[in-house]
Amino acid sequence: MLAEIKSIQWRDNAIVLIDQTLLPIIEKNIEVHSLEQLRDSIVRLAVRGAPALGVAGAFGVVLALDQARASGWSDDRLATEIDALRDARPTAVNLAWGVNQVRPLISQGRDAVLKAAQQLAEDDRLANLAMGNNGADWLVKKLGDRPLNLLTHCNTGSLATTGTGTALGVIKELAKRGKIQEVFADETRPLLQGSRLTAWELSKAEIPYRIQPDAAAAMAILGGKVDAALIGADRIAKNGDSANKIGSLGVALACHIAKIPFLVVAPESTVDRSIKDGSQIHIEIRGDEEITHIAGKQMAPDGAKTFNPAFDVTPARFITAVITELRAYEIEAGESL
Amino acid sequence: MLAEIKSIQWRDNAIVLIDQTLLPIIEKNIEVHSLEQLRDSIVRLAVRGAPALGVAGAFGVVLALDQARASGWSDDRLATEIDALRDARPTAVNLAWGVNQVRPLISQGRDAVLKAAQQLAEDDRLANLAMGNNGADWLVKKLGDRPLNLLTHCNTGSLATTGTGTALGVIKELAKRGKIQEVFADETRPLLQGSRLTAWELSKAEIPYRIQPDAAAAMAILGGKVDAALIGADRIAKNGDSANKIGSLGVALACHIAKIPFLVVAPESTVDRSIKDGSQIHIEIRGDEEITHIAGKQMAPDGAKTFNPAFDVTPARFITAVITELRAYEIEAGESL
Repeated sequence: MLAEIKSIQWRDNAIVLIDQTLLPIIEKNIEVHSLEQLRDSIVRLAVRGAPALGVAGAFGVVLALDQARASGWSDDRLATEIDALRDARPTAVNLAWGVNQVRPLISQGRDAVLKAAQQLAEDDRLANLAMGNNGADWLVKKLGDRPLNLLTHCNTGSLATTGTGTALGVIKELAKRGKIQEVFADETRPLLQGSRLTAWELSKAEIPYRIQPDAAAAMAILGGKVDAALIGADRIAKNGDSANKIGSLGVALACHIAKIPFLVVAPESTVDRSIKDGSQIHIEIRGDEEITHIAGKQMAPDGAKTFNPAFDVTPARFITAVITELRAYEIEAGESL
Repeated sequence: MLAEIKSIQWRDNAIVLIDQTLLPIIEKNIEVHSLEQLRDSIVRLAVRGAPALGVAGAFGVVLALDQARASGWSDDRLATEIDALRDARPTAVNLAWGVNQVRPLISQGRDAVLKAAQQLAEDDRLANLAMGNNGADWLVKKLGDRPLNLLTHCNTGSLATTGTGTALGVIKELAKRGKIQEVFADETRPLLQGSRLTAWELSKAEIPYRIQPDAAAAMAILGGKVDAALIGADRIAKNGDSANKIGSLGVALACHIAKIPFLVVAPESTVDRSIKDGSQIHIEIRGDEEITHIAGKQMAPDGAKTFNPAFDVTPARFITAVITELRAYEIEAGESL
C-alpha cells in the first residue's frame, strides 16, 4: 500500500498544507492559522490546484470565523476578509466556488461551516475516484485495452486535490489496472509543477515517467511517443473552452494535428456554466521574476520585461472530451457542458 | 553606433570565444588553444549556433594543424582528431560543413587553411546581412510596411553567427528600418538561450522585447499578439523539413493554426540537399541533468529520467518560407530547396 498524500486538511483548528514550493526536496507541512497566511500560501502557490483551492476556500471561511471571534471583527470586516480570500487568484473558479459553498452557512454557526467544508473535501476525494474511472474507461474504449503512453502538463494529482487527482487520477487508475507504459510529464515552466510535483507523485506511486521541457511536448506527440494527453482545468466555459496552466494550449494543438485524444479532466465544480465561452475568462498575469530568475539566480538581462500568463485557454475545438465525475462530455463531437 | 558582438574570432594563434554559458551576467572571452578545449566548448555550448559552429569547425582545423606540429602527431592521429571535432554535435550540419570546407586545403599548408577559415567567417557575416534584407523584405511584402510584433525561439543572433544573425538578423534589419514594435523571445528551456542570449542581444541593440516561457508561445500566437515567428535552423532537408532547437515545432504548429507566417532563416550552408526529408536527420539527445537541475539546484525527484532532445524537426508543411542569403524559398507554396 502506497502512502497517501494529503495536500490539505483541517487539524486542531488550523489548515495543514504540504508546502508545495519546497517539493520534491523537502516534505514539510505548514499550519495556517490566519486568513493572511492562507492568502499568502495561495498566492505563492504553497497550495495550488483548482480542487484543492476550492477546499482551501471553504476551510478559509472557518479560519475567518475563528479569527473574527478572537479579534472582535465586525460583520463588515469579516465579509471584506472573506471577499479578499475568494479573489486571491482570479482565474481559478474553484477558490470562489469553495468560499461560496459554505458562506451561506455562517448564520448556522462555525461548526456547520466546518462540517460543510469537510464534506467538500470528502466529495472531492470521491469525485477524483469517479473521474479516474470515467477517464480510464474512456481511454480504454477509444485506444484499446493496452498499456498506454500518456502526456500530462502541470500537476493534477493529490497535490492539486484532496484525493488521487483529476488528470493524474486517471493515470493512477490506469496504472492500477496495469495499463500505463510511461508518462511524459511536462516540466511546466515557470514554476516547474511537472518536474517538482507530478514527478514526485509518479515516483511515489511507482509509475514509470520521464520529465520533458514543455517545448519537447510537440515533438513527443507528433513523433508518436504518446497515445493521448490529459490535463486538468481551472475553469471550463459552457462551450468547453478550458483555462488551464500556461502551455496546455500548445499540447492541445499538437494533439489536434497528430489526431490523438486531448482530454480535460476536472470536477463539475470547475465548470462555469455562467460563461458561454473562454473569452470571458480573466487570465492572471504573474510577475517578471518567475521568468527572469530561477532558484534565485538571474537568468536574463537587468530590467528584462516578460509575458508571464499563469493560464491559457484551449478552445473547445481542440478538446476531444471533458471528463468529470459525472460523465465524459464529447466536445469534439459537438457536445457542450 | 552600437557595439559589435564577436562571438568567435581568430586572434594570436587561438580561437577567441565569448563564453556563452556565462551570459547575460558575465561577458568573458575564452582563448581556445587545443582541439580538446574546442570540443569541450562546443559540447557545453560555450560556442553554439549553426553558423558559428561552422566557423568553429574551420578554425578548429587550423588549431589541429598547429597542435599536430607542436606535438608531432601522425597524419592518422591528425585525421582522427579532426573527425572527432567534426562529429562533436551530430545534428548541426554546419560544424561538419566548416571542417570539410577547409580540410582539402591542408596540403596547401596551415596559412591557406587559416585564410579559408577567415573567409568563411567573412562570408557568414555578409550572408547575415543578405538574409536580414531578404527576410525583412519578405515580411514587409506579406504583412505591410508597419511596425511588427515578432516571436523568436532560441538564439540566432551575433552569438550564433559571425555577423548580425539569421532570424535575429532579420529582426535587427527591421529594427534599423523602424519596423519593430516588440519581440517575444521564448526563454528556450532547458538552456535558456532566449532569456540569456537573445534578450541580451536585443537589450544591447535597444530593441523592445519580452521574454516568455516556451509554453506561452501558443497563447501569444493564437491570441493575436504576434504577426509572425522567425527561427534559425541547424539542418534543412531538400524538401524544407527543418531541424532547429527543441520547441521550434510547437511554434510552427501554433503559427499554422493561427495562419501567420512561420519563417526559417538560415544560410545556404545549413541546407543539406543530400537528404530528401527530415526523417534522415539524427537528433542529439542530451543528458538528464539539464532538466532535473537548474543553476545547480535539484528540481526533480532523485533518479528522475527525462526526454531531452536538443532539436526537433518541423515538417515542411508547417513552414511558410525558408530565407537564405540567396532568396526566399516559398515552402508553403510547394517549393523545395
